[in-house]
Amino acid sequence: MDFDEIIDRRGTHSDKWDMMQAKYGISPQDGIPMWVADMDFRPPACVTGAVEGMARHGIYGYYGDDRGYRAAIRWWMKERHGWQIEPEWIFTTHGLVNGTAMCIDTFTEPGDAVVLFTPVYHAFARVINAAGREVRECPLVNNDGRYEMDFAACDALMTGTERMLILCSPHNPGGRVWTRAELQGVAEFARRHDLILVSDEIHHDLLMPGQRHIPMAHIDGVANRLVMMTATTKTFNIAGAHLGNVIIADDGLRARFARRMAAMGLSPNSFGLFMAEAAYSEEGAEWVDALCAYLDGNRALFDAGVNAIPGLRSMPLEATYLAWVDFSGTGMDTADFTRRVERAARICVNHGPTFGTGGESFLRFNIATPRARVAEAVERLQAAFADLQ
Amino acid sequence: MDFDEIIDRRGTHSDKWDMMQAKYGISPQDGIPMWVADMDFRPPACVTGAVEGMARHGIYGYYGDDRGYRAAIRWWMKERHGWQIEPEWIFTTHGLVNGTAMCIDTFTEPGDAVVLFTPVYHAFARVINAAGREVRECPLVNNDGRYEMDFAACDALMTGTERMLILCSPHNPGGRVWTRAELQGVAEFARRHDLILVSDEIHHDLLMPGQRHIPMAHIDGVANRLVMMTATTKTFNIAGAHLGNVIIADDGLRARFARRMAAMGLSPNSFGLFMAEAAYSEEGAEWVDALCAYLDGNRALFDAGVNAIPGLRSMPLEATYLAWVDFSGTGMDTADFTRRVERAARICVNHGPTFGTGGESFLRFNIATPRARVAEAVERLQAAFADLQ
Repeated sequence: MDFDEIIDRRGTHSDKWDMMQAKYGISPQDGIPMWVADMDFRPPACVTGAVEGMARHGIYGYYGDDRGYRAAIRWWMKERHGWQIEPEWIFTTHGLVNGTAMCIDTFTEPGDAVVLFTPVYHAFARVINAAGREVRECPLVNNDGRYEMDFAACDALMTGTERMLILCSPHNPGGRVWTRAELQGVAEFARRHDLILVSDEIHHDLLMPGQRHIPMAHIDGVANRLVMMTATTKTFNIAGAHLGNVIIADDGLRARFARRMAAMGLSPNSFGLFMAEAAYSEEGAEWVDALCAYLDGNRALFDAGVNAIPGLRSMPLEATYLAWVDFSGTGMDTADFTRRVERAARICVNHGPTFGTGGESFLRFNIATPRARVAEAVERLQAAFADLQ
Repeated sequence: MDFDEIIDRRGTHSDKWDMMQAKYGISPQDGIPMWVADMDFRPPACVTGAVEGMARHGIYGYYGDDRGYRAAIRWWMKERHGWQIEPEWIFTTHGLVNGTAMCIDTFTEPGDAVVLFTPVYHAFARVINAAGREVRECPLVNNDGRYEMDFAACDALMTGTERMLILCSPHNPGGRVWTRAELQGVAEFARRHDLILVSDEIHHDLLMPGQRHIPMAHIDGVANRLVMMTATTKTFNIAGAHLGNVIIADDGLRARFARRMAAMGLSPNSFGLFMAEAAYSEEGAEWVDALCAYLDGNRALFDAGVNAIPGLRSMPLEATYLAWVDFSGTGMDTADFTRRVERAARICVNHGPTFGTGGESFLRFNIATPRARVAEAVERLQAAFADLQ
């Protein structure tokens, strides 16, 4: 678990590293990629061991007998989240973008609207629009650097065509771990407007010390409209495995989802199945604990450095490794502060506006990289904005 | 390329081996699995090398830059099939069951009918039905152990609700390599009834010596209704990679398919991408040539042994490793000959009726296994039907 180790990912078909030049015009020789949400760390040894085991055996045919895989998912949810699930509640989608898309396809019709608390993970709006549904934005309130929901304002935005709400919990970007009261508010809002509630909890394992994530499944009165989504891919840095857990307790919703899965002919790849089963283990859990402690150190370093720049403010992260930095205090326009970050500091970042309303003055920085690189990024940012000192 | 090597696949999450007991009540200790259509051979060293390389590097994040992958597909189609395609024609689905499902979803509506020449690969009917479409069976004519199409009879079966035809070329089961005249007949039939033509050519590389496969894309007058499907998974025995090529030359069809891919949030896993790029190479091509020669030896051994049993007849394979054996000459009913194969010979096989009309008196045997095991299977079959001698 040497998170300080610098591993060269260039030339390995890493989206984050090998697409820097094409997408940002920033060379991977001296640029710092803080965009794509994967980590520059190896997964735990149990996961790489699973891949090595497959490589050694050498026959990669059709996968059979997923009892161990389902048992591992079940163990993890119980052990790490106090959440009791049944093996038959679990569907395996090709990552959670596909999982989200399958929910939209199953539970809404073209022309229906899907509610998002914005700014939020950009792929939600992408698949909603691609499916011919409408995004209904409910802007979060930025309460002194902390996102909160204003349900009365959200009520007023509903038009009657809304059929689904996709919640990001913990929240990306912004890093909020929603409180029980907030989650109850979301549940009541979903009930009030008769919305299917899709709770994307992909960041549920990546918590800063002292934080406690509450699964939406633990909120009363929501089970009959709830779809839960989690994944090994984010927690263990195995996005390439393209595997997501869609977990549905309600019999009726589950039957509908199962029909669409069958109609889409979807079944998971063996590599992902082997890796996920290995990851959801005692060894995986120890690694996650160490990872979260390391990420917290990166967070402290990044926030201290960035918040020292006049006009910049990094939202306090309660979870995730995605720092959400507000540049509004600089008085600069979006193009100007983005140019300084990308051209002067040579850092690839995600642009706030892609996350929807409320993201205009923000950039998102991925800090899941060896600490020396975070330190280098902070130095470069301080230099790029030195005239503000 | 030692295809004779016996590799123990038991306890490796092999569907074919590890589900024998559950599905057939046949022990993997002494049973012979000849059902699931994968091979008991390692893929070429370039493919296992790609997996080893991934294992060694150890970070499995988001995949980027698929130019090499698309170039490899393009090279293979040109080099091995004389078929010129453009990189942007290629979609990557999660295997070709998902590819087929995506075609049905994109190009037909609930209640539409999809035409199949039966008996045919059982998953087609499964996804057609799961999607709420109707299967329109056009039975093949068994002309003295050779499947042929009777287009006049097919014309008479059309009701006007048919929107798509899924062709299996080469044909599974039955192993026909369709002639140019037959493919022209299919194209004219599709035109006559205004059908989208999905040509599943997943077995196009697995040809018996002297056979020549003609891509449907080479048939005149069909491009504006044609979807081509091929895959590395069948050719190179990497079904676990769950990757399929859906190749669409027509701009209009391609745009429709692209919209559904985006709406489904589908993108491929890294392992499959690395393996496919490695497979579609000179080294991969040499391996396939050696494989086909070996499979031809298995075919000769299997057919000679099976055809020596009075009343059994194995269809002459022109392609695929799936022997299709007709038991009608025994005069036994389906339950009786199946019981002898499964209970007396302890061989797991695919049941003919699952392939649709025309499959009633057949069982399908997968002969892609070391030759000693084929010989053992033949001996057991001869013993199980010894009373017919």
